[in-house]
Amino acid sequence: MSLVMNQEQLADYMENIFPQVHKDFVVEELNETSIVMRLLVRDAHLRPGGTVSGPSMFGLADVCVYAIILARKGRQALAVTTGCSMDFMRKPDGGNDMIARCTLLKLGRSLAVGDVLLYSEGSDKPVARATLTYSLPPEGSAAAEFG
Amino acid sequence: MSLVMNQEQLADYMENIFPQVHKDFVVEELNETSIVMRLLVRDAHLRPGGTVSGPSMFGLADVCVYAIILARKGRQALAVTTGCSMDFMRKPDGGNDMIARCTLLKLGRSLAVGDVLLYSEGSDKPVARATLTYSLPPEGSAAAEFG
Amino acid sequence: MSLVMNQEQLADYMENIFPQVHKDFVVEELNETSIVMRLLVRDAHLRPGGTVSGPSMFGLADVCVYAIILARKGRQALAVTTGCSMDFMRKPDGGNDMIARCTLLKLGRSLAVGDVLLYSEGSDKPVARATLTYSLPPEGSAAAEFG
Amino acid sequence: MSLVMNQEQLADYMENIFPQVHKDFVVEELNETSIVMRLLVRDAHLRPGGTVSGPSMFGLADVCVYAIILARKGRQALAVTTGCSMDFMRKPDGGNDMIARCTLLKLGRSLAVGDVLLYSEGSDKPVARATLTYSLPPEGSAAAEFG
Repeated sequence: MSLVMNQEQLADYMENIFPQVHKDFVVEELNETSIVMRLLVRDAHLRPGGTVSGPSMFGLADVCVYAIILARKGRQALAVTTGCSMDFMRKPDGGNDMIARCTLLKLGRSLAVGDVLLYSEGSDKPVARATLTYSLPPEGSAAAEFG
Repeated sequence: MSLVMNQEQLADYMENIFPQVHKDFVVEELNETSIVMRLLVRDAHLRPGGTVSGPSMFGLADVCVYAIILARKGRQALAVTTGCSMDFMRKPDGGNDMIARCTLLKLGRSLAVGDVLLYSEGSDKPVARATLTYSLPPEGSAAAEFG
Repeated sequence: MSLVMNQEQLADYMENIFPQVHKDFVVEELNETSIVMRLLVRDAHLRPGGTVSGPSMFGLADVCVYAIILARKGRQALAVTTGCSMDFMRKPDGGNDMIARCTLLKLGRSLAVGDVLLYSEGSDKPVARATLTYSLPPEGSAAAEFG
Repeated sequence: MSLVMNQEQLADYMENIFPQVHKDFVVEELNETSIVMRLLVRDAHLRPGGTVSGPSMFGLADVCVYAIILARKGRQALAVTTGCSMDFMRKPDGGNDMIARCTLLKLGRSLAVGDVLLYSEGSDKPVARATLTYSLPPEGSAAAEFG
């Protein structure tokens, strides 16, 4: 129940493995069971009408859960997303960044589950919620293989 | 139970409303209860390792259900996504387009539900499945408002 | 943002409308955005191996969200469940009651969304999580009709 | 890709392991990738208003996917449900049995995914849809342990 990467190490590692997307995401807080991540909203994340696109919100929620698994399991953690449920509840404000607050509900031998609430910065009403499940590779193997 | 836009009209309309994304998607088949859509996979859709990214698959599934609602309800159908569940089952092949086969399970007064199976072209085993729910605006109103 | 039934009124009302199930459920806490409910685990809720059955957990989560909608909207609130996602994370202990902690994330004009964490009493690790969505009837109409 | 139990063997086995519930369920059809199961609707499955309860529908969907995993993997298959998503689309008819049509989308080393459509007998419009995910025990071990 401890972190193997701190916030800075996690940010460095993500910059290395996801050079094309790391500019979108900033780790704001990290502890053993939760992470807060910011999506730096740019035009590429918007839909007509000035809202943040669904795929951008999906990506933010997915990255959150992946990042906390990395921080707990370390760089060898080649976890893969196996499931996602999301509810979109309010219109996101395309003029503000999005803040995702993720709680790691389970980190088992072969499955991890994280809950995420997404907010437009400055509002306390969640725009969306998501739960992501990850398959973890067996000890000693190279990667999870979608089960 | 009939279409108010045919395949060509739907493609034209989507090109108008989503100029930035319509180059990604091609409507391949359309009838009253199902639609087949192609994602023209480009570098922007890929993840390290040569797989199609989760947000790209989410976007494809979401567009499918939106498009068949449009084709059934017409241009005034300002439906909004309210829910999504997805299961990622196999590694997508980043070297091929993705084909989404969507079935419209329900088109009610205020809610629509569509099921989608996603394939890498050339394989008959689904890469992922998704169900999307949409909130439909009341008759005469401008738009659904996330319920 | 206020309750139209307090904890006692809610319990009385549920006893009237669900005489066959009210003996299973006890409202433990209630406020405007959250509810805690206990499932009095009996043999009928168990599976071989002494765990609580999936349908019993589904029922508990569903009743939680329904109850808080009732407490907020009042007796005319003929809401219907339209969606559910659940993750089962640990083996429930059939020898203890289950405690469900529900947060009402949204109560809109036509849709409500509640998140639920389920625990075996005495443990602080959740057995399962659930999100339930409800369709609410338009003002003045008799009932929601599954959208 | 073949069955290790046929329809009769599956029914016998389920009667042995689930004596308390097997009277509710009848396997109607079975092949390598799909199963059709009937819920013999009785008063215990009903809600006020004469509809089939949500927990009963959850239970039917869950049993379907479990049964086809059993038929494919054999009696040692101590699979556990890890996830479920459901959409409730129409009011079930409490005066008729429910028919569940399940497709096994994936049967991997450690995860299985099945899609289910639920109908009130005599109607071709689905009452509900469900996707269930199961965790499968590693070869040689006694049971899956919720990941």
